[in-house]
Amino acid sequence: MAEKKAEEIFTAFKEHSIAEFFKKNRQMLGYSGKIRSLVTIVHEYATNSLDAAEEAGILPSVRISVSEKGEDRYMVSITDNGPGIPKSYVGKALATILAGTKFHRYVQQRGQQGIGAAGCTLFSQMTTGKQILVKCSTGTGKGYTCKISIDTVKNKPVVSDMVDMPDLPRGLSVEGEFAEVKYENSDHGILEYLKRTALSNPHAEITFVDPTGQEHKFPRSVQVMPERPEPAQPHPLGLYVNDLLEYAHASQERKISSFLQENFARVSSGKVAELRELVKDVDFDKDPKQLSWDDSEKLIKAFKQVKWIAPESTHIKPIGEDQIRLAMKNIFEPEFMHVVERKTALLKGGIPFIVEAAVSFGGFSGRKTDEGHEATVMRFANRVPLLFDSGTCAITIAAKNVDWKRYNLDVEKMPLSIFVNVSSVHIPYTGVGKESIAQEDEIIEEIRLALMEAARGVQKYVSGKMRAHHEATRYNTIMRYAKQLSLDLSSITSKDQKALEKAIEKLVASKIPQAGVKDEETAEGTEQGEAAEEEE
Amino acid sequence: MAEKKAEEIFTAFKEHSIAEFFKKNRQMLGYSGKIRSLVTIVHEYATNSLDAAEEAGILPSVRISVSEKGEDRYMVSITDNGPGIPKSYVGKALATILAGTKFHRYVQQRGQQGIGAAGCTLFSQMTTGKQILVKCSTGTGKGYTCKISIDTVKNKPVVSDMVDMPDLPRGLSVEGEFAEVKYENSDHGILEYLKRTALSNPHAEITFVDPTGQEHKFPRSVQVMPERPEPAQPHPLGLYVNDLLEYAHASQERKISSFLQENFARVSSGKVAELRELVKDVDFDKDPKQLSWDDSEKLIKAFKQVKWIAPESTHIKPIGEDQIRLAMKNIFEPEFMHVVERKTALLKGGIPFIVEAAVSFGGFSGRKTDEGHEATVMRFANRVPLLFDSGTCAITIAAKNVDWKRYNLDVEKMPLSIFVNVSSVHIPYTGVGKESIAQEDEIIEEIRLALMEAARGVQKYVSGKMRAHHEATRYNTIMRYAKQLSLDLSSITSKDQKALEKAIEKLVASKIPQAGVKDEETAEGTEQGEAAEEEE
Repeated sequence: MAEKKAEEIFTAFKEHSIAEFFKKNRQMLGYSGKIRSLVTIVHEYATNSLDAAEEAGILPSVRISVSEKGEDRYMVSITDNGPGIPKSYVGKALATILAGTKFHRYVQQRGQQGIGAAGCTLFSQMTTGKQILVKCSTGTGKGYTCKISIDTVKNKPVVSDMVDMPDLPRGLSVEGEFAEVKYENSDHGILEYLKRTALSNPHAEITFVDPTGQEHKFPRSVQVMPERPEPAQPHPLGLYVNDLLEYAHASQERKISSFLQENFARVSSGKVAELRELVKDVDFDKDPKQLSWDDSEKLIKAFKQVKWIAPESTHIKPIGEDQIRLAMKNIFEPEFMHVVERKTALLKGGIPFIVEAAVSFGGFSGRKTDEGHEATVMRFANRVPLLFDSGTCAITIAAKNVDWKRYNLDVEKMPLSIFVNVSSVHIPYTGVGKESIAQEDEIIEEIRLALMEAARGVQKYVSGKMRAHHEATRYNTIMRYAKQLSLDLSSITSKDQKALEKAIEKLVASKIPQAGVKDEETAEGTEQGEAAEEEE
Repeated sequence: MAEKKAEEIFTAFKEHSIAEFFKKNRQMLGYSGKIRSLVTIVHEYATNSLDAAEEAGILPSVRISVSEKGEDRYMVSITDNGPGIPKSYVGKALATILAGTKFHRYVQQRGQQGIGAAGCTLFSQMTTGKQILVKCSTGTGKGYTCKISIDTVKNKPVVSDMVDMPDLPRGLSVEGEFAEVKYENSDHGILEYLKRTALSNPHAEITFVDPTGQEHKFPRSVQVMPERPEPAQPHPLGLYVNDLLEYAHASQERKISSFLQENFARVSSGKVAELRELVKDVDFDKDPKQLSWDDSEKLIKAFKQVKWIAPESTHIKPIGEDQIRLAMKNIFEPEFMHVVERKTALLKGGIPFIVEAAVSFGGFSGRKTDEGHEATVMRFANRVPLLFDSGTCAITIAAKNVDWKRYNLDVEKMPLSIFVNVSSVHIPYTGVGKESIAQEDEIIEEIRLALMEAARGVQKYVSGKMRAHHEATRYNTIMRYAKQLSLDLSSITSKDQKALEKAIEKLVASKIPQAGVKDEETAEGTEQGEAAEEEE
């Protein structure tokens, strides 16, 4: 074969839009497999609806309806009571990949990429050639309807049929037709997804009409809005050299000292004085735009020598212990559970995160198997259920790393539900489809500690129950012989058989406490997490 | 809390470049974890070098060198003998995300996204603030050196210090400094990655200098270039409505009939005549640009009613049975193996793919464990080893779905290596980091069938070996008594003891073949895959 020159090869060189890329690689957005693809659509729209309502300070109500339109072809419509999208932004918000209000801020939200809704628009036009129908109002008199699609070559929105509809109620409604999708009522289906969404969002009202027309209602169980997280400033401890350099070069401050105080969490004038002592050859009074890579490296090194107080908790709002307890109780009706909320921890890049975990035992916990039960793991990120790609997820890895047997818990046999929610201003997802959290050491470790604490909390109850079960068995075995023994003794000693039987029963009961009766008082969720942290 | 209006919320609206997106989500490119990040760098550059050399018709030689520059900080340099990059394209090729020669063509190559090399440039500037140093020549007198980085806000290349170097030899050399990375000699390290690359690319010469200065050489074991795959035309059976519509609207043909014949695999004038019969209300003589969504739906339906011959094999070049056998022999020195190459199959979108699989037994196959051995699975896509994210990969799922016990293979105890390579013009990776193949039904099924056939091929040998082992044990047990028996018989019958012992030995040997000796002839790889396909 003749050799080919670089010049020939490179005549085929072209640049591509991100929309074309995802059109060709739609599996990366979560559109692989018919069942998963349908869940992805609901997931993207529902998370946007919840985020928007909360940002506007509105208790969210979301209605999702899925109806069959043919073989592997469904209509999906989602209506919320949120703030709506101003007419001039609707194309960008729903039909441009990587445009959005969320991407550039460090604020805890479900969506964080500006890809999801545009991905749905792309998937609809790819599979059915249809546009997405939008009905929307941002307030009285500001309603409109329109149809949207994406010009994939340019990654630009195409908005058509715009009509003013002053009477529409506030909120956003999107309706699209999708093919190559399939509705299924399974562990990986929409109903399970919404059930888990309700579990982690007790302040939301969710209604789902399935393809048979049946309405599933998940009522609001908490009537107050969750506290809003504030946008976060990065913490110095999590910063990398290039982060600091970029912040410095983009800063409006006139001195490095004030730049550090204004832009990063926990940097006081006292800390700056400490840093000045540690890094003598960096001039803290110069313009931050003059900060060099070397200066930045020195500062980062110094950050690690200073004592910092923990990051503020105002930026991360976890679900909360009481709400998790309430939700788990509603769904699993467990005999016992233990809920753990860890303190704020730091991921690289200075990003704070909080892990919550719970382990419940009995009731509808776990999954039924042929031989009894097994444990199930429910994964959440910023209250969003993660149903797919569990194999690569930090939560799965951490749960596998826990030595459950040490806590007398048998994950292969016991009815256990394991719940983990990771809250952060930026969840490091493994993929654009946001179904799995990357295996960052800091996150795995926090989850592991939370799960060990939860396991320890449940251990006492389960051990007691196992002991009680064991003793009840012993007690019943011995009692089976009590009557015969009393008859034999009676015939030997001529004493009253009934009296002898009673005496034997009393004797056995004094040695083996008559167990096996569930103690309802201790099952109530009043236990507190042990304060001690496990070091291994 | 007061409600916030949509207009307030949307003032924070911004669009972002794909470079900014990956800067914030570098874990999606494979940059999560220090060890994995270093492998990702080598993986991206090495696949580009192999692709470029092959496209130019040059037998690839690649030299990779990794040296330590500080804590979690390394210099990586890669030099190839490929065609080089013309000076005017170097910025786009190495420092623009989603620019590349590969993305828009359906041709089987390792890289397919136009992201990898630019991702390395981004990662270097993010972690060390350094540019990538390029030394390159596309032929005599056309050498140059320069430094490159990315303007992430615009996703545009920044090329500096361009100097002509007419004496440089042909090829590309890149050198970069990276932090937050770590070299480790493990199952997930660079050495293992390159070992597997050598396994699946016997026509390449690979040299690796590790951080201790030790040189590892993987010599070229095959001196001929693999056949070059031709760019593929989509097959009608795998097309979706929107694909057909887009091809039609972009077509230069004047009639739908000629458009179909010119653009799709296996569409002859005879097939068009058949289609005309099936779809009477579509005018095959009209301009393809006039094709409507409805027309396209009707054609797609008709495609499924026509009989098609299999896709051509010129577009997919798998590694080949002999080469896999040779490579497995070099690396595992197994007692026995069975290699399977499946026929071309079709993935949705009309994309052809071929699965190759091999199972080897004994030698260095599998992994040593405390209790003996266990099976290992080696995953490849277009000859590229996949080391990470195995949990979500179609290959892993398919291997789990095989009932190995049915073939008398115990994956928990036997020294088995399971090899799978998927070749295609477009591998549906789960993520941009290209470490895992999406769980598309068609792919999983092909892998499963290939593995079952390979398992069946090994079954006979392993069963024979197990039976031989069993019989050898029986034989030896009985023989232990032969001498004593002959002594006893001799004293009773006064016959010669030696003669009796010989007679007994002969008798036992006739009943139990003296097994336990490895039959070297049958271990050689001459066995043919059974033709029968398994239906379950």
